[in-house]
Amino acid sequence: LPVLSNILLATQSNRLKLAATNLELGITYWLGASVEIDGSLTVPARLLTDFVSSLPSGNLELTQNDLALKVGTAHYESTINGISSDEFPLIPQVKGEPALTLAVEDLREALAMVIGAASLDEARPVLAGIHMYVDDQSLVLVATDSYRLAERSLKLKAGQVANEDFSVIVPVRTMQELVRILSDSQGNVHMYTDANQVLFEIDGIELTSRLIEGQFPPYRQIIPTEVETIAELPTSEFVRITKIAHLFAKESAGGIQIKIQAEGRLTMSSNTSQVGENQSVIDCDVQGDDNEVSLNARYLMEALGVMKADTVSFGTSGKLSACVLRPSGNAKVDDFLYIIMPLRT
Amino acid sequence: LPVLSNILLATQSNRLKLAATNLELGITYWLGASVEIDGSLTVPARLLTDFVSSLPSGNLELTQNDLALKVGTAHYESTINGISSDEFPLIPQVKGEPALTLAVEDLREALAMVIGAASLDEARPVLAGIHMYVDDQSLVLVATDSYRLAERSLKLKAGQVANEDFSVIVPVRTMQELVRILSDSQGNVHMYTDANQVLFEIDGIELTSRLIEGQFPPYRQIIPTEVETIAELPTSEFVRITKIAHLFAKESAGGIQIKIQAEGRLTMSSNTSQVGENQSVIDCDVQGDDNEVSLNARYLMEALGVMKADTVSFGTSGKLSACVLRPSGNAKVDDFLYIIMPLRT
Repeated sequence: LPVLSNILLATQSNRLKLAATNLELGITYWLGASVEIDGSLTVPARLLTDFVSSLPSGNLELTQNDLALKVGTAHYESTINGISSDEFPLIPQVKGEPALTLAVEDLREALAMVIGAASLDEARPVLAGIHMYVDDQSLVLVATDSYRLAERSLKLKAGQVANEDFSVIVPVRTMQELVRILSDSQGNVHMYTDANQVLFEIDGIELTSRLIEGQFPPYRQIIPTEVETIAELPTSEFVRITKIAHLFAKESAGGIQIKIQAEGRLTMSSNTSQVGENQSVIDCDVQGDDNEVSLNARYLMEALGVMKADTVSFGTSGKLSACVLRPSGNAKVDDFLYIIMPLRT
Repeated sequence: LPVLSNILLATQSNRLKLAATNLELGITYWLGASVEIDGSLTVPARLLTDFVSSLPSGNLELTQNDLALKVGTAHYESTINGISSDEFPLIPQVKGEPALTLAVEDLREALAMVIGAASLDEARPVLAGIHMYVDDQSLVLVATDSYRLAERSLKLKAGQVANEDFSVIVPVRTMQELVRILSDSQGNVHMYTDANQVLFEIDGIELTSRLIEGQFPPYRQIIPTEVETIAELPTSEFVRITKIAHLFAKESAGGIQIKIQAEGRLTMSSNTSQVGENQSVIDCDVQGDDNEVSLNARYLMEALGVMKADTVSFGTSGKLSACVLRPSGNAKVDDFLYIIMPLRT
């Protein structure tokens, strides 16, 4: 559908509305304009963006001439051929009072911490989303692809949530777009929902998306309530040895071995018969007994990459149990956990 | 040939020699080492590089065990499987006195200015190289793909060149590698040649390459000795309008139109019937009459990208003649020209 590559421009009172959609999600933005004659047209998004961003700052004049848009300034003038706005899909309206209000920075950081754990596979639709719900006056964001799981909790203040039963699953692709918008925004984000749709409103930008239907799996069952062994390690050093182990595990599905010794040592190793083998050792604080487990190196690197703490606690109950990672030490966030399922070796 | 993906490590007195080759060019580097037992082996270049660059700074211990290399430190230890050094191709030796000696920075900058104009097509081998020769106590570097040509001259001081008849054609891929090496180097580069090979020696690094046989075309014939019209423009503004014009020319082979008016104006325009059209105007100093010419936008952007001057002079003698660009104003370099052949429209 060619019109989906286009951006809608439409005057609306003394504003210009810009909108784009891929049918799953839509983004609408309004900007101030001095409107002389009303008009609406869709033009190729990439060309308009590249042209406008090549111009020096200043005011732009836009003139619609049937299906062509004349846009530019006295020195730089373009005519871009478009498609009638009649062909542009309607972006659903979601109305009412905000279901949830959050600081932009809190939501951006929480999403960035969990989004990587969501599934990119649509085979189980609920896993290709981020589950957001209210539990005990906290907003919980959780994502899992069934191999690993990330859960972030944000304490809510009075008035931030309209309904204690709030619970939605938002497509991961919508959340990727939302993270991009939040990265350029400030202030608050308001979230509106109805039975099938969600609307995020941030500083004049509206992001509308379908919701994912269905029940998110009862994931709390797989979070270990306690672990046999916990090692506390400097995050940067843990990242370093995981990257090294991954080099030697690439051709054997990413499997690496972690051995924790109660006297205060973590040993990570990997090998691929064709390539070679490697072993790294870190001295660390250990609580509990000797233990060992095999993990996928990529999942461990991704978990460490979102920890946002100088020190991380790594908990394991051996080869058959899920590992639990949490930020520790001078953590900026303390209500975060990352679960990685072990590799059966 | 799997061994070409490997890097050769070989002890040599109290140094470790590292070498890599793709048969067309070879690079050799020596570094200080404390050698206990001599050895030589080839191991995968990518894996060794990724492993070593993941380590904290400090000393590395390397131990050869038949066809395996043990490498690492007390905390990080790897064993990398290799291929016998007997299978590693010999990198040709080029001996004698330096044919040419230049400051690293001068050669790097000159190469960066001309390299983009060389042909990437091996159909005419001499055009897939950079021609370097001595003319009137200057070193001339020139490259052309027959659609555009870049020529840089560097004044030589006494002793920099051994032979006034110096003339070689070096493969463009060798020069791309040389630019990378020069970017990380300081001091002087010495160039040695024999009938078929060239050796660049920079700060302990040796880059050896075959030379391209044949005669470089007598290109000076196509450089206009004078032009009818010259416009002097701010480089950044010329880049801006060329980028804009390129947006509307992408689907019509990149052709843009330039019109110069004697009263002091340059107008650039482009159009593709499906997409739209555009026109930009710059006020500028003009010498000569009204004129116009069509060019490929990409060639013009590349020419402007290597001008290294705040102002550029653009010369044309109309639709059938080559355009001549030179840095002007407060140019850091003044002995550079870029020729672009017109598009016949």
